[in-house]
Amino acid sequence: MKTIMIYNGPIYTLDSKQPVVRALAIRGERIIAVGNEGPVRAAAGSQAELIDLQGRAVVPGLTDAHVHIVLHGLARQQVRLTGCADYAAALDHIATAAQRLPAGAWLRGNGWDHTLWGGHWPTRTDLDRVCPDRPAMLSRKDGHSLWVNSRALELAGITAATPDPAGGQIQRDDQGEPTGILLETAMELVRAVVPPPTRAERIAALRLAIDEALSYGLTALHVPPATNPTDGPDTLIDLQTLYHTGDLTIRVLAHLAGAHLDHAIALGLRSGLGDDWLRIGGLKLFADGSLGSESAHMLLPYEGRDHTGIAVIPPAEMQEIVTRANAHGISVVVHAIGDAANRSVLDAIAAARATAASLALPNRIEHCQILDPHDIPRFAELNVIASMQPIHCTADMVMAERLWGKRCATSYAWRSLRAAGATLAFGSDAPVETMDPWAGIHAAVTRQTTDGTPDGGWYPEQRLTLTEALEAYCIGPTIAGADAERRGRLIPGMFADLAVLNGDPFQMPVTHLHTLHAELTMVGGKIVFNRTSR
Amino acid sequence: MKTIMIYNGPIYTLDSKQPVVRALAIRGERIIAVGNEGPVRAAAGSQAELIDLQGRAVVPGLTDAHVHIVLHGLARQQVRLTGCADYAAALDHIATAAQRLPAGAWLRGNGWDHTLWGGHWPTRTDLDRVCPDRPAMLSRKDGHSLWVNSRALELAGITAATPDPAGGQIQRDDQGEPTGILLETAMELVRAVVPPPTRAERIAALRLAIDEALSYGLTALHVPPATNPTDGPDTLIDLQTLYHTGDLTIRVLAHLAGAHLDHAIALGLRSGLGDDWLRIGGLKLFADGSLGSESAHMLLPYEGRDHTGIAVIPPAEMQEIVTRANAHGISVVVHAIGDAANRSVLDAIAAARATAASLALPNRIEHCQILDPHDIPRFAELNVIASMQPIHCTADMVMAERLWGKRCATSYAWRSLRAAGATLAFGSDAPVETMDPWAGIHAAVTRQTTDGTPDGGWYPEQRLTLTEALEAYCIGPTIAGADAERRGRLIPGMFADLAVLNGDPFQMPVTHLHTLHAELTMVGGKIVFNRTSR
Repeated sequence: MKTIMIYNGPIYTLDSKQPVVRALAIRGERIIAVGNEGPVRAAAGSQAELIDLQGRAVVPGLTDAHVHIVLHGLARQQVRLTGCADYAAALDHIATAAQRLPAGAWLRGNGWDHTLWGGHWPTRTDLDRVCPDRPAMLSRKDGHSLWVNSRALELAGITAATPDPAGGQIQRDDQGEPTGILLETAMELVRAVVPPPTRAERIAALRLAIDEALSYGLTALHVPPATNPTDGPDTLIDLQTLYHTGDLTIRVLAHLAGAHLDHAIALGLRSGLGDDWLRIGGLKLFADGSLGSESAHMLLPYEGRDHTGIAVIPPAEMQEIVTRANAHGISVVVHAIGDAANRSVLDAIAAARATAASLALPNRIEHCQILDPHDIPRFAELNVIASMQPIHCTADMVMAERLWGKRCATSYAWRSLRAAGATLAFGSDAPVETMDPWAGIHAAVTRQTTDGTPDGGWYPEQRLTLTEALEAYCIGPTIAGADAERRGRLIPGMFADLAVLNGDPFQMPVTHLHTLHAELTMVGGKIVFNRTSR
Repeated sequence: MKTIMIYNGPIYTLDSKQPVVRALAIRGERIIAVGNEGPVRAAAGSQAELIDLQGRAVVPGLTDAHVHIVLHGLARQQVRLTGCADYAAALDHIATAAQRLPAGAWLRGNGWDHTLWGGHWPTRTDLDRVCPDRPAMLSRKDGHSLWVNSRALELAGITAATPDPAGGQIQRDDQGEPTGILLETAMELVRAVVPPPTRAERIAALRLAIDEALSYGLTALHVPPATNPTDGPDTLIDLQTLYHTGDLTIRVLAHLAGAHLDHAIALGLRSGLGDDWLRIGGLKLFADGSLGSESAHMLLPYEGRDHTGIAVIPPAEMQEIVTRANAHGISVVVHAIGDAANRSVLDAIAAARATAASLALPNRIEHCQILDPHDIPRFAELNVIASMQPIHCTADMVMAERLWGKRCATSYAWRSLRAAGATLAFGSDAPVETMDPWAGIHAAVTRQTTDGTPDGGWYPEQRLTLTEALEAYCIGPTIAGADAERRGRLIPGMFADLAVLNGDPFQMPVTHLHTLHAELTMVGGKIVFNRTSR
């Protein structure tokens, strides 16, 4: 078995008994020693492979406790024209992307802005030149118009004779021929004929997204199922496919779709089945909608509105589902943004206790964005994980202020939850926000955007220390995944899941935390990302 | 990590490069060295815990590739009165068993024979004396009468006023009161009110059966689901329950019920999900019935009969199901006894190939009891595991001879299958037959019953050598379970799954092989059975 010794830099263990050490030895997939260089070198032996940190810092591998990993990869596979001010360069970019795609696949893109191109709309004929053989479809940055090529028009059956649909427009030239720009509802004519991504495209997207995750120092992911239940169980199939070919380089906890509860009960499948690379998580449910769409379910009306949002699964039904899931050994993982939604889930979990089977994984609430103060202690009391994404706080604080007003004092309430004994498990919600956990740690520690807004941080009393934020990315998710005895800290006997960073998080201004990334990432003692060898 | 050295006895590795060594070292859950005592001692180090074999032999842990483990445990939990010639002793035995059961549980038993008790039928009043508080029900050895107590009669609503059902009789005393003996169809009056075993009873049964398995040197089990699909997914739930409490001491591959294919597809569950302790196997299907009931499906009529048995799943439907399962990454595990049934499954697997996903586990046929000679090479060609139970051969050879005649030349055709390149995976089919793998090895090597019948063995050209039989219990099942690189042989890097035996199988007459058992059994480096400490 291979032995590796890492030395000559600060190694932050998240073990309260010895929080910083100077060396660490690994044999096979596990840590065998941590401490000062002398004793660790003795434990590693003279044959050990050496990794000289040259002063760089090491942290335990981070977990993203909420990431739509395949969707993120699929979004990344699209051609991104965001900020591209040169039409010819945009076309070159598209040409390159078109050549890389598998035969028959649609070219998809987004982010273009024709106001940067002298106000001239792009055309299908230009697109045909760089992407002649396959259908192409690129969304404008605002998502209100679509640029398509001739092959896409043909597949959608759009010709000069096609009438404009209600609420939309097929842009046409002097001869009445479609130019390749579809506005508003006319976009649906093409979208309706776009096939779902193939298995090969999904697997390629998953690989891409995992590589990105590893580049941040993430070593594990908690993955919701496809949001739309009609999408089927594709994410779990993708993950098993990668697992069985031996190509899964990051640990994954994969949740089940809420719509699939009866299937899981029929099979006798319980949360926690799997191994340290791929495991079945809980049942993903939706208690409400979102802040931006004012569909998060609130106890009192939105500021200046007369409505309280939407209970997607109303409380009585929530209680029925949670009770049935927990009684069959299936934990729940419930999306809840508004204070009413969070209360509904906590009530349901409390009610389910009487008949719950012994659960391998704790129940959890995803997002927990705004809480009534009375509900904050209930997370610890009911052993419910608070799975939160700190970047949502700084991305949405202006909107939150406007829609929730003074109630924001207990929004994104990390400090209050932690003080009340709750386990925080942090994540990204990518592709909704960036997957970068260092952007999340920056947000958690500063409650400011990266430009320093607002001064002193938004509701700064809810900020976390750097250690606390790291714990919420490293340890909290392992409590949620019931593998805290095996990973998340750098302690002998645990898996060697760790990241060598490009800087020392504890020796830099907190306003710079978002500039960190991994130089080298290791999962189970194997180097799965190495920036210098790229 | 703990280091153990085992030495001073023959260690049969099943590694063709060094089949017999004298010492073996283990660190944590894996083997780190095998060879002569000197070098192994050096590898183990001076701190190693020592296990002195005192000349006893070691073999790799065996796998039972077909065992109804919970059913076996439930059968074992019943009071067994087989051969008990003393009525008072039988009642004492029942009294002891009754005290051990959880509150409210039925007492169940079997095996009594009142001809050994002077021809006097046992009575409910005697049974009431030793089992007053709970209902009790004990089958006569022939299964044609049932001895019950007053509580059982009461629950079944049987009184002096109850008429005898058609085809049965409620035995009565001079006053017309039921005596506690129910004959033939009258037994159903009580059986209909017996609740299915509780979870606690099932878990207790499972523990009991696992302990028995370990006592033979078995370290892994392949477990079919409940035979009756209406029983639900209880076995998998039992196994997960034991797993999550950390009490699963044997490795298990658990198959899915055929009726659950759509649920597995909906969830995206594929064969192979799990870890080295508990993993999802394939989809259990039934191609035909059994030899004894003349429902095994044959190409030509049974000897002296005009029928060919029953295709439980007819060929066209078999092909549809196997194709659908394999296309979704789910392997099939098909019960097939008769030559027509085996052909049907092989045909279905061949047809499924065109659209099959990459399978983590190979397809397999369970039993393969009689094969048309043309089908024998197809197991290897189609990568189908021949999962067979050698004890069926010697238990059923007289009946086979009578019903299959000369066709028996290719029944239980281990040698022919092996010569044609098939992988043999041996098991017991317990509780149908004994779970003891040494009884199976004896049958495979001798093709005789333990009393030496018939002379020279039945179709002796199909016998296996001892090494080949051990390979079919140790290596074959690991090929079926896709874990042959991790266990099944004693090679450095593999799991320390092994058994210390009470004798040396290679130094005893083959007619004594069934007398072997384990003195000590280790799974993943942990001693999970130790006869001397019992």
